[in-house]
Amino acid sequence: MAQDRAREKQGLPDPATNYSDWYVDAILRSEMADYSPVRGCMVIRPYGFALWENMQAALDARIKATGHKNAYFPLFIPEELLKREAEHVKGFAPEVALVTRAGQEDLEEPLVVRPTSEAIIGTMYAKWIQSWRDLPLLINQWANVVRWEKRTALFLRTTEFLWQEGHTAHRTQEEAHEEVLRILDLYRDFVETELAVPVIPGIKSAEEKFAGAEATYSIEALMGDGRALQAGTSHDLGQHFARVFDITFQDLDGERRHVWQTSWGVTTRLIGAIVMVHGDRKGLRLPPRVAPVQAVVVPIWRTEEELELVRDAVQRIQRELTSVARLEVDWSEQRPGWKFNEWEMRGVPVRLEVGPRDVREGRATVVRQDTRTDPSGPIKEQVPFDALGRRLPALLDEIQAAMYQRALAFREARTHRVDTIEEFTSTLAADRGFLLAPWCGDAACERRLKDETGATMRCLPLDAPPEAGRCLVCGKPSSARAVFARAY
Amino acid sequence: MAQDRAREKQGLPDPATNYSDWYVDAILRSEMADYSPVRGCMVIRPYGFALWENMQAALDARIKATGHKNAYFPLFIPEELLKREAEHVKGFAPEVALVTRAGQEDLEEPLVVRPTSEAIIGTMYAKWIQSWRDLPLLINQWANVVRWEKRTALFLRTTEFLWQEGHTAHRTQEEAHEEVLRILDLYRDFVETELAVPVIPGIKSAEEKFAGAEATYSIEALMGDGRALQAGTSHDLGQHFARVFDITFQDLDGERRHVWQTSWGVTTRLIGAIVMVHGDRKGLRLPPRVAPVQAVVVPIWRTEEELELVRDAVQRIQRELTSVARLEVDWSEQRPGWKFNEWEMRGVPVRLEVGPRDVREGRATVVRQDTRTDPSGPIKEQVPFDALGRRLPALLDEIQAAMYQRALAFREARTHRVDTIEEFTSTLAADRGFLLAPWCGDAACERRLKDETGATMRCLPLDAPPEAGRCLVCGKPSSARAVFARAY
Repeated sequence: MAQDRAREKQGLPDPATNYSDWYVDAILRSEMADYSPVRGCMVIRPYGFALWENMQAALDARIKATGHKNAYFPLFIPEELLKREAEHVKGFAPEVALVTRAGQEDLEEPLVVRPTSEAIIGTMYAKWIQSWRDLPLLINQWANVVRWEKRTALFLRTTEFLWQEGHTAHRTQEEAHEEVLRILDLYRDFVETELAVPVIPGIKSAEEKFAGAEATYSIEALMGDGRALQAGTSHDLGQHFARVFDITFQDLDGERRHVWQTSWGVTTRLIGAIVMVHGDRKGLRLPPRVAPVQAVVVPIWRTEEELELVRDAVQRIQRELTSVARLEVDWSEQRPGWKFNEWEMRGVPVRLEVGPRDVREGRATVVRQDTRTDPSGPIKEQVPFDALGRRLPALLDEIQAAMYQRALAFREARTHRVDTIEEFTSTLAADRGFLLAPWCGDAACERRLKDETGATMRCLPLDAPPEAGRCLVCGKPSSARAVFARAY
Repeated sequence: MAQDRAREKQGLPDPATNYSDWYVDAILRSEMADYSPVRGCMVIRPYGFALWENMQAALDARIKATGHKNAYFPLFIPEELLKREAEHVKGFAPEVALVTRAGQEDLEEPLVVRPTSEAIIGTMYAKWIQSWRDLPLLINQWANVVRWEKRTALFLRTTEFLWQEGHTAHRTQEEAHEEVLRILDLYRDFVETELAVPVIPGIKSAEEKFAGAEATYSIEALMGDGRALQAGTSHDLGQHFARVFDITFQDLDGERRHVWQTSWGVTTRLIGAIVMVHGDRKGLRLPPRVAPVQAVVVPIWRTEEELELVRDAVQRIQRELTSVARLEVDWSEQRPGWKFNEWEMRGVPVRLEVGPRDVREGRATVVRQDTRTDPSGPIKEQVPFDALGRRLPALLDEIQAAMYQRALAFREARTHRVDTIEEFTSTLAADRGFLLAPWCGDAACERRLKDETGATMRCLPLDAPPEAGRCLVCGKPSSARAVFARAY
């Protein structure tokens, strides 16, 4: 850490000119995560994990409030099970890790380290579901999964990552479809409300859907460099897995039918989204609702006498504020300016400065970190000590709302309507961002755009207004605009 | 589930005559867990997982309150890292699972699926720890681990299991030792207070200690069949891992020194302990503090008129009690007697019966499930509706306390002082239980006892009074009595 501390004094790379170095340094130097000696696997350090725990708590509450229950299924999946659904295995086979040896013996059948759990959960559902009375079956699991990615990046794409995966089974197609959209909206609400990241909910193209799904829905976010990030997916599995795993139930009329299934997940890559949507050249800026530390108190003193004065006041503040906010007090030996930088790097939403003058005037200087790089300088206010207990929670709410609005304004400024391939290409080159383009729905046109520009179809927004037009690639009729972008 | 339901009507095997079948059935039929198609791996079903979540919350709060922070380290450990500590690899090599192929290529170096994380965490600590200012480093992780066991049993010994593993680094040996004992006491408090399972904290023999530790401490519990279960361990690692992973720090005097480490864990096997300590012939009996459902309301009616009367009263009860207890109301179509059995099987601590007569008299019939197999029959009380909000939480506390006392009385009745091998053998044959025996401390004597009787040294209790005696095997002087038992 001494090493890291020395580096911190140097400041981060400029995100305007070197976004990817800035991203990595913002994560490493805030001690959110670190590289491990295992290829493509990262360590989530306590500061990053505390953020994840807050995210988990907020999402888990929503998942439970909608009637889902948590469970835990095995890490290992017999290779044969994964192979049963043809599209599923085609999608995942290239990136699985295989256990071939265990207990000092070669295994007869290799075990796949789960890349996702449809196959193992489908096997159990076939056993548990007998009658319409057992439906809907609404289960979620928080787990680690492994996908052997060729290129990896902290949080965004790691060999092992953490996620939740919901797996539900329903009596009718309509119920399953409602579930898919209910969860998509639950994800939208979670990401927008808790992470202050605006997203576009929509349906993926056939090219981009989950291997084994009938249809995939996603929420798409725009990062600070104008690239898109898929922030969560909700899959309508139809009866694909029900048929291969023979998941049937006796229906109300006595007939045996296959269930209709859904699956859905969000992952630790959302932490990458938080970094890229809110971070600035000084480091992270964490949304108050999930920030591990919501406010840091930096006591300021020079003499022993001043220290005594400040210590009493800070201890009183700490006692009063501990119940209203996640608070940290930095009594370390460093200079105040050094501490300011440190906590800015870590993205703590509010800084409270308490110096001798503040104490004599009975107030703290409160600095809003979301405004720290505004051209006019950060918004500061003097808050009387006895008003802090009311002011701080309100201020955290204001910051959360402002961060969302700022991200939304950024996204809107970088969302462009384009009608021709030339416009598409030049806009992408100049500004990246979300491109709303008329598209006929054909995979060939989608592939050509991808090959020529590197941009992929992100989704057809659920609320896209009908708009008769011509596909920007082939000129055939199109009925709405899809969202395209270069993506992580 | 229809199948399971049909089975439930049959009742469980008698634990007095067929303990292991009773154990398995009590788990399967309460839907706590199920077998999976993967050798030795189980599925933790929603009811079992809700119990685990409550246990996690209670333990996690204690871990954080003592200054530890959660983090997450990779699932995979390069084989070479595991091999560095000689005893560690000797202990774990026979039971590791190896990933040898990934991303459709053979790996140059196999990856071990973590059986425990000292090696990977040690590697990171060497990077993070530079100065005495970085110490103590107090980190915990909740994770899945894999040990390829030859014989497996639901919860008690599964190929994959869930646990928490704490890993700490300290400046001095004394501090590390204090940490080991602090955690041992934290575990004791957690298991006794939350799970109502009395335990004996003590130190393991050299034979039984963790592979790579200087010393291992454990808490030992006695199961309903008189066999012991190790319920948690806390290891003093000395400088074993610090030396091989080169974890050093600059000390106060400027010298570089190796850190002193500890590690400690409890696992999902604690769920097995809950089943075996508290369960009876009717099924589980879950301790109120961690029970997923603390009270079940069973409405009783025959006519439509009665249903209406009962429904109103039950809905009122539900509204009032939801904030004071984890409540379930069983409106299913089954007969009341069937519901009683079902919820007894699931071990819900309190049953509230509400029938037409109860409603007319303005009270519920409250049945304490911990007393359900008492010779004098279960303790029931009539509680006026408006007193339930106060009475129910108090009753849950009484049940929790009574369950602990019952388990303690059972353990004391089956704890025996023995002084000779003959006594040892005959007591074990007649009663199993904990045997307190004078032992010289020699591994040879310990091994002979194990070979001849199947009993192992569980621990030397921390509070064992000094008692000059003669080792029951070799007759050499002994200074205290150790605990022996047949163990899971």
